[in-house]
Amino acid sequence: MSILVGGSVAIDNVKTPSADEKGLLGGSASYAALAAAKLASPVHLLGIVGHDFPASHITMLEGNGVDLGGLEHSSEESFTWSGEYHENMNERTTHNVAINVLEHWEVKVPDAVASSPFVVLANMAPLNQLQLISQCTASEKFVVADTMDLWIAIARDELEEVMAKIDLLVINEGEAREYAGTNNLILAGERLREKGPQYVVIKLGEFGALLFGEDEFFRCGAWPLRDLEDPTGAGDTFLGGMIGYLASQNAVAPSFAQLRQAVVIGSILASYTCQDFSTRALESVTSHDLDSRMKEFELISQW
Amino acid sequence: MSILVGGSVAIDNVKTPSADEKGLLGGSASYAALAAAKLASPVHLLGIVGHDFPASHITMLEGNGVDLGGLEHSSEESFTWSGEYHENMNERTTHNVAINVLEHWEVKVPDAVASSPFVVLANMAPLNQLQLISQCTASEKFVVADTMDLWIAIARDELEEVMAKIDLLVINEGEAREYAGTNNLILAGERLREKGPQYVVIKLGEFGALLFGEDEFFRCGAWPLRDLEDPTGAGDTFLGGMIGYLASQNAVAPSFAQLRQAVVIGSILASYTCQDFSTRALESVTSHDLDSRMKEFELISQW
Repeated sequence: MSILVGGSVAIDNVKTPSADEKGLLGGSASYAALAAAKLASPVHLLGIVGHDFPASHITMLEGNGVDLGGLEHSSEESFTWSGEYHENMNERTTHNVAINVLEHWEVKVPDAVASSPFVVLANMAPLNQLQLISQCTASEKFVVADTMDLWIAIARDELEEVMAKIDLLVINEGEAREYAGTNNLILAGERLREKGPQYVVIKLGEFGALLFGEDEFFRCGAWPLRDLEDPTGAGDTFLGGMIGYLASQNAVAPSFAQLRQAVVIGSILASYTCQDFSTRALESVTSHDLDSRMKEFELISQW
Repeated sequence: MSILVGGSVAIDNVKTPSADEKGLLGGSASYAALAAAKLASPVHLLGIVGHDFPASHITMLEGNGVDLGGLEHSSEESFTWSGEYHENMNERTTHNVAINVLEHWEVKVPDAVASSPFVVLANMAPLNQLQLISQCTASEKFVVADTMDLWIAIARDELEEVMAKIDLLVINEGEAREYAGTNNLILAGERLREKGPQYVVIKLGEFGALLFGEDEFFRCGAWPLRDLEDPTGAGDTFLGGMIGYLASQNAVAPSFAQLRQAVVIGSILASYTCQDFSTRALESVTSHDLDSRMKEFELISQW
């Protein structure tokens, strides 16, 4: 079934203790759409880029089955993020965020894709998330959203509106604690559910993820990585992988068992993203790779 | 099969955001022995206490099946730890450590228990761990040790000697990173194995634990706790629970499947310790409680 992914499409400049790469494909929607397209089709990306956006990134996304009919091209400059990961790879410093094309962006959903039953509100301003969801026309749909600390701090009212309109929130650990106002992650998951979404996933980075439903709970680990190169986009990949799996199952009203499986697939797909800069490792993942890692993951997680 | 647990036996004064309790039973050996005694028998505790050690703690340990024949009584004051947990309960400040009886302690293993096939070197000075292991006489035994940042910093040579003599190291996340000299936990586990022990467990607190063997790996989550009261001793409980399970299976040369099961049981027993101050919650755990939580843990961990 059809997936609509809206969010940022960026140029990333990423420095790590071992390398320094510029002009990379970045952005929440890029990772999420590419991950979803590994598992389901069609995947429609909604976003905006500037005149300076490398054509090679367009070619790569299209070559991997992502429909870019909803990608706007502006005469301004592209949204650009420049950051650095430190020795432990868990902490990063943002050196520069150039909002550029995103500043006055208004999401316009093309008629042809407005009825997609799976809707991904990848990380972007809650106002853009609201614009997107208001144009979705499917009578039965499954809507998932991600967010970040910035929006929790400066756009909380709009974020609360988003929360009331989604089925699944995917949020990382620190942001869950901040948004829910508690350091206990179990309480945080429960409190975030009370804001609207039937399901909440808290992403734990190298420690996996927690899935909360009504009276249901699942904890998933992460794939053990020796070669962590660049974790940028891992959370977006997780989100896209989850929704890609649900779409492949036509699960517009997923069972908890389907959501568990979606979390595991999201977690495994995200492990590939961490193994190289930008979307490089994710691009080359085959379904055979994924199946094989999924099987091994089951072995190392059971007793 | 018989278990010998050596380590500290302490008086703890613990402050948390919600309470302030003094004169509690603390110490690595207290938690580890009590946890082991939940699963196997006999459990012999080796340690030293002072004249000020509350008789009620003695009564409780003996009442729970811990043999205190190897607990020395000194005319000095007991080892005492005073600390405080902060709002997030993951960080703590040590306000005072009074070494007292531990300063000149020399471990003496009574002949009657020297042939125990399961040996737990709970957290104490590596010198004391070496004294203990040198007096153990079983031809086939399984030796497990814990350690802490202090010994990594000030007694690394003796710790390396310990590492060469044990079968399993159980160590927490931060200390594993520090001791192995890498922030990558998978690499850390592998490097610690190279120091001697056939198996290594890295404890992740609220995120569970990682078990490393030769070409084998297992990741276990933690029980989701809404009511974290006092995490003191959770790691020692984990250690004792692991060894208690292995002893209950007579597994002096455990299979990886038995070690996986031991990690799960250790993780679940540790969750009880966090639910109340000192050993209170652990004391009251029945085998029915444990079985029931183990079953539910399996449900929330599988997909």
